[in-house]
Amino acid sequence: MTRQELHQQIRSKGSYLCVGLDADFDRIPRHLLKYDDPVYEFNRQIIHATKDLCVAYKPNLAFYEAQGPKGWASLQKTLAHIPKEHFTIADAKRGDIGNTSRLYARAFFETLDFDAVTVAPYMGEDSVTPFLGFDGKWVILLALTSNQGSRDFQMDKQENGQPLYEKVMRRAQEWGSADQLMFVVGATHPEQFEEVRRIAPEHFLLVPGIGAQGGDLQAVSRHGFNDHCGLLVNSSRGIIFAGDGEDFAEKARAAAMKVQKEMAELLKR
Amino acid sequence: MTRQELHQQIRSKGSYLCVGLDADFDRIPRHLLKYDDPVYEFNRQIIHATKDLCVAYKPNLAFYEAQGPKGWASLQKTLAHIPKEHFTIADAKRGDIGNTSRLYARAFFETLDFDAVTVAPYMGEDSVTPFLGFDGKWVILLALTSNQGSRDFQMDKQENGQPLYEKVMRRAQEWGSADQLMFVVGATHPEQFEEVRRIAPEHFLLVPGIGAQGGDLQAVSRHGFNDHCGLLVNSSRGIIFAGDGEDFAEKARAAAMKVQKEMAELLKR
Repeated sequence: MTRQELHQQIRSKGSYLCVGLDADFDRIPRHLLKYDDPVYEFNRQIIHATKDLCVAYKPNLAFYEAQGPKGWASLQKTLAHIPKEHFTIADAKRGDIGNTSRLYARAFFETLDFDAVTVAPYMGEDSVTPFLGFDGKWVILLALTSNQGSRDFQMDKQENGQPLYEKVMRRAQEWGSADQLMFVVGATHPEQFEEVRRIAPEHFLLVPGIGAQGGDLQAVSRHGFNDHCGLLVNSSRGIIFAGDGEDFAEKARAAAMKVQKEMAELLKR
Repeated sequence: MTRQELHQQIRSKGSYLCVGLDADFDRIPRHLLKYDDPVYEFNRQIIHATKDLCVAYKPNLAFYEAQGPKGWASLQKTLAHIPKEHFTIADAKRGDIGNTSRLYARAFFETLDFDAVTVAPYMGEDSVTPFLGFDGKWVILLALTSNQGSRDFQMDKQENGQPLYEKVMRRAQEWGSADQLMFVVGATHPEQFEEVRRIAPEHFLLVPGIGAQGGDLQAVSRHGFNDHCGLLVNSSRGIIFAGDGEDFAEKARAAAMKVQKEMAELLKR
């Protein structure tokens, strides 16, 4: 999917919502356990209930790997069920030496057929660039994450006074363009968004951390929008676990609609 | 496995070799394709040929994920086939927000039953500590990796003049002890080993980068040994792809034996 196509989806739906399909087996509603593949059935109903309200889906791989080979099967079936107009993100946070990153890239872009994969920057250029060699596919590089631990290293000032996450964003722009590279910037750092936009005015930002993690959609949007929107804001637990009974999908829809309506208003400004 | 048990294995075998089971499907000998699970068969023969010469096996997850669900099945069967006295490392380089890292930890320590998993530090404390909560299990944290890209961020000087990888090693020692935490330090940085040993005198170091990547076992051992050895030196391609014909396992054994003999001599000093 191109940057223009993604912006067009955002305009037509009045939404820049990404729904995180973090289908934790221990938290999905118990009545689904009667299905052959409860995780897939959970995702199928969540997708059905939210697909007109969001532009992207983001399964976090941890929740599937924890189930072993059958988790991978659930993931494949889920991915096949997501409508083609949605942007799909493998939240995998991979990154390894060059020849190994190439294999990860094949796993997510070929064996599976995701539009994007999240990548960790610690190992530098040759760990990231193998993911950039796939036509129409995207790298979403961790810059400033939403968790408490983001303050341990990412915000550390370098000798020149620039925090590590800034250096990551600047260096990465030498490796890939705004048509193939996005950055993760957590909603829990609203005060950093203006600086982030100075460093990367054109790039899409994937923003986790609203909902369960407490980030503020208004603040993120006010400081994070570029001329075309340029944001994908993710909510996982706040939507998919809004309910835990037989009506979980309706509850998820209501939670997603609340976010989407707020987004539609913000996009009008 | 405890630190003492691992040192005992090293002494009794005269080896601190870790064999990297990076069973790239495109590189395994073609005659194995007649088996139901060629990757498992490859690993089975490699393990049979090298088990008396090494103390650890390290499959890199990328090579299994690239095969989808059947790759995970190959990995599970491989792991079950590794003798109990060997230390097993899931080279996964994972790391995510707290609730997600916990799931990855369960994937590698419970769904699978690895002794250790490699973890990336970029996301900080709450991304690493969930892996430390498993009795008898180990975290191997990326500090200074073996690839060219390790020079992009890991060696960057902070405001206080200390490179990032040093800060990672110092902070991590607040999270876990030398009985549950190791560090990855690449053999391609022999000049850094003395400094690394000043920062972490007691910790095991997992050292990739000899063989195909050009690191020097003599230099690494001279500067990296602590009083008990304290090194696991990995070779992947240099051993497992030493041959590509029907005698690949014999070739692998010969390559492993060459390294082990050098290690036995180094351990005597």
